[in-house]
Amino acid sequence: MSQNRIPIALSNRHLHISREHLNKLFGENYELTKLKDLKQPGQYAAEEKVDLIGPKGTIKGVRVLGPVRNKTQVEISFADSFVLGVKPPVRDSGDLKDSAGVTIVGPQGEVVLDEGVIAAARHIHMTPDEAMVWGLKDKDVVNVRTGGQRSVVFENVLVRVNAEYALEMHVDLDEGNGAGVKNNDEVELILEQQ
Amino acid sequence: MSQNRIPIALSNRHLHISREHLNKLFGENYELTKLKDLKQPGQYAAEEKVDLIGPKGTIKGVRVLGPVRNKTQVEISFADSFVLGVKPPVRDSGDLKDSAGVTIVGPQGEVVLDEGVIAAARHIHMTPDEAMVWGLKDKDVVNVRTGGQRSVVFENVLVRVNAEYALEMHVDLDEGNGAGVKNNDEVELILEQQ
Repeated sequence: MSQNRIPIALSNRHLHISREHLNKLFGENYELTKLKDLKQPGQYAAEEKVDLIGPKGTIKGVRVLGPVRNKTQVEISFADSFVLGVKPPVRDSGDLKDSAGVTIVGPQGEVVLDEGVIAAARHIHMTPDEAMVWGLKDKDVVNVRTGGQRSVVFENVLVRVNAEYALEMHVDLDEGNGAGVKNNDEVELILEQQ
Repeated sequence: MSQNRIPIALSNRHLHISREHLNKLFGENYELTKLKDLKQPGQYAAEEKVDLIGPKGTIKGVRVLGPVRNKTQVEISFADSFVLGVKPPVRDSGDLKDSAGVTIVGPQGEVVLDEGVIAAARHIHMTPDEAMVWGLKDKDVVNVRTGGQRSVVFENVLVRVNAEYALEMHVDLDEGNGAGVKNNDEVELILEQQ
């Protein structure tokens, strides 16, 4: 069983930001300042933070992740969504059509985002070599057991395969705290009996 | 399968309070004011709220549930525990030995609680008749599937049987939001194949 173990990471609310919106929120030609590298190669937490304003409330100090992307994408938990009063669909990263909106406030301006707010679908990043060992391919859907006193089996877990990825399962804070796991805990990929 | 459906309820942070502590926090011989009945017979949400203060932070406006109990019991989620900086064990209601502490502040005084703070273990209330139909007894442990896009299977779900109970599964906000369920959604009791 030990070869079916995958480290888990709990994602707090955050946003990926477009060049256009970075300019509006932080100023023309502003460059993000790296705070620390994330486990996925090339991705980093930036020093910069913004506030999110919804119809029901505000969440201050939401971290920006780098590098800049084509589209701004705000990832929040359902707990966050109730504070803001928005209804994010559960979506894979990048699938933003008809997702929720929110107002983003930065030090130099604000952006009224019509769509781009999602609750990220739980997923596993892995390399083609790792996928091959498990008999998996990109976009497969698997189950994962967390184990322990608060054990849950996460169903509908999306497999993402790319040579640039590092092996890691991503859940949001609601999901991680509800299962009693913390960053770098190992969870168990449940493989179908052949 | 429809006969294996159970309504779920998401418990926000709350506390049950002893007579001694009600006196200290709200004044001698103070009586709780019922805000609304809960589904479990005799239990109610009170108008009264208190603040919780831990080593790392404060959570304001935590609701008191009635009626008064023998011991004060504070139920918080893991998300709450990180805000407060306390480490509640996952426990069944009433099992408070060596649990976490917190300072409780009310309008008339404060209580330094040495133990009584827990993360409530997920559980199902049911009557003896319901238990019999499912072949279950008090303190059995079962699995429950939430279904839907964010489906999880909750493992280690405690069965509590009492003639005074109403059929209902209880989880905390982390667990419920992580599974994408809301109050009164129906979840599926997974019965072992015989």
